[in-house]
Amino acid sequence: MLPRNNMTSAPIKTATQSQEDLKAIIAPIKEELAIVETWLTTNLIDDNPFVGELLSQVFQSGGKRVRVAIALLGSKASLIEGREMGRLNIIQAVLTELIHTASLVHDDVIDSASLRRGKETVNKRFNERLAVLLGDLLFAQASICLARIMNPVVVGIYGQVLGDLCAGEIKQMRSQFNIEVNWEAYINKSIAKTASLFAAGAHAGAILNAAPDLQVQALKDYGVNLGICFQIVDDLLDVTGEATELGKQPGSDLRAGVITAPALYILERDDETAKRLRELIKTRQICTDEGSEEGIALIKANGGVEATVKLAGHYADLAKQSLSKLAPSDARDSLENLINYVLIRTK
Amino acid sequence: MLPRNNMTSAPIKTATQSQEDLKAIIAPIKEELAIVETWLTTNLIDDNPFVGELLSQVFQSGGKRVRVAIALLGSKASLIEGREMGRLNIIQAVLTELIHTASLVHDDVIDSASLRRGKETVNKRFNERLAVLLGDLLFAQASICLARIMNPVVVGIYGQVLGDLCAGEIKQMRSQFNIEVNWEAYINKSIAKTASLFAAGAHAGAILNAAPDLQVQALKDYGVNLGICFQIVDDLLDVTGEATELGKQPGSDLRAGVITAPALYILERDDETAKRLRELIKTRQICTDEGSEEGIALIKANGGVEATVKLAGHYADLAKQSLSKLAPSDARDSLENLINYVLIRTK
Repeated sequence: MLPRNNMTSAPIKTATQSQEDLKAIIAPIKEELAIVETWLTTNLIDDNPFVGELLSQVFQSGGKRVRVAIALLGSKASLIEGREMGRLNIIQAVLTELIHTASLVHDDVIDSASLRRGKETVNKRFNERLAVLLGDLLFAQASICLARIMNPVVVGIYGQVLGDLCAGEIKQMRSQFNIEVNWEAYINKSIAKTASLFAAGAHAGAILNAAPDLQVQALKDYGVNLGICFQIVDDLLDVTGEATELGKQPGSDLRAGVITAPALYILERDDETAKRLRELIKTRQICTDEGSEEGIALIKANGGVEATVKLAGHYADLAKQSLSKLAPSDARDSLENLINYVLIRTK
Repeated sequence: MLPRNNMTSAPIKTATQSQEDLKAIIAPIKEELAIVETWLTTNLIDDNPFVGELLSQVFQSGGKRVRVAIALLGSKASLIEGREMGRLNIIQAVLTELIHTASLVHDDVIDSASLRRGKETVNKRFNERLAVLLGDLLFAQASICLARIMNPVVVGIYGQVLGDLCAGEIKQMRSQFNIEVNWEAYINKSIAKTASLFAAGAHAGAILNAAPDLQVQALKDYGVNLGICFQIVDDLLDVTGEATELGKQPGSDLRAGVITAPALYILERDDETAKRLRELIKTRQICTDEGSEEGIALIKANGGVEATVKLAGHYADLAKQSLSKLAPSDARDSLENLINYVLIRTK
């Protein structure tokens, strides 16, 4: 659970309350969400039933469909009054989740991760080879969705997202165990890894709806800022979370030498705490259970958590501000509530 | 080296002669090929020099650019007279090679292959994790190319190709050690794995050139049939080739339980030879050096090679027939010569 956030009014909530919040947030797009679920497991490639089985296995293992909600709500918030959401808006939401899931499956291979959402990863449960194939299959499904949308601008947006996802992974890989504090690099990595897809999800529907440029841009800004906020919260949870909440062991970033906001706030100090954390990282003691526990303790005892919550709150506020450029609607309210949901999510 | 082919006039050639043939084939597109090479290693994603380094490493390790040649020649053969090839034709050729290379890199992970073109595979030289990332990076570059082409029909064609590549790999995986003879399944797998991308490469340029439907269809048919022929020759070389020619150990398909044309011709017989090959596969003796050597010997001694050459020749003839619907040109001649080149290629 996250500590109280000073910059937004998000109260401390339990996991159950959080689920209730999500239920209210997705109320305006309930029907569309059900259609998306069917699409996600539909074999678009050929008539081989095995492909459908693989897709079912992936998508029945859960996930909160945050990116689907953003896409559908973005589409709904940018509809011309009286119009209904179209098939292309649905496909754009499907596509967004497909790319997200594909990148998770491949990231778990790249990071040799064994747990995700409390369940064994595909690479762990089966093997790395099937995980590679499955990720490719999901990317292929996404490409077919993209083709059905038939909009060159949207193709360009998602093409760049795919590049950003790889670039983000490369940036992370190459900055492992790097103790230099570079906030710009950290934010850019967060954009590439996470916020780029959030932004695509949030504003591509508005493009398909031929919404005014101001609305398209507002939704894009919302997506980028919410995505950065989401990644910061993710990084924070790796420090503050419990294994049961996270669905994986906490401290895994630190053990892998991935230095995120909570650690950066310590490293940028000029004191003994910073010196000790630098030492833990440089000597790779951080890779051990004892080392990562000491690192987490240093972060917690020296304000790393509070500063990170504040940083997440800053991007949450920016996301909120972007929404003011949209006309009031249930969908816009849900997009706003989604910001608080991201800030207080417990896993 | 391949035995003499009865259905086409391709003579037995040496590797050097074969290289000379390729040089003549690509003469009409020499300038464009050089531009493609530059594009292949250009980072389209961001300004990270490491991405360019990775791309250089992949593409400097060779490859004959057969798919690039098909794409550029298809574009050239379908140009309206007096027109020059445009930037989009170049990008379409780049895109075709990017998808091919991405799928090779991931296939080597999926198949745990350690040698490709006589060199260590990415997964062997570095690790599986980098190979996954590198494949994704190449797919991302391809998506960005696709976006730049800005043609919804072409997006659809390549989206389906990505699906076919996965479907082909799944079909192959699921039919390992299957001794039932199903020629339709074998050809369909060859289309999915190989010919689908050949077809896309061959005819997408004609679509960009706004060529008449008859020409577009002729180039598509050419690509499919040449692709099937190419895959059959590949399967044959796994039986007849030498390690030095293949750049990998011969018999690797058999050892992995991948049953292709040369083996199918034996398995469909009703005699002791077929019985023995079935036994080798069923008992997994085929996975050993002795077992695969015995399998290869059975195939060679019982006409499996000759029958496979004939089958490849059949698809070569179909490819040749498709070309008759195009106006005569240097590019068309090269496309025709490329068929012979595929039939006699030694690795």
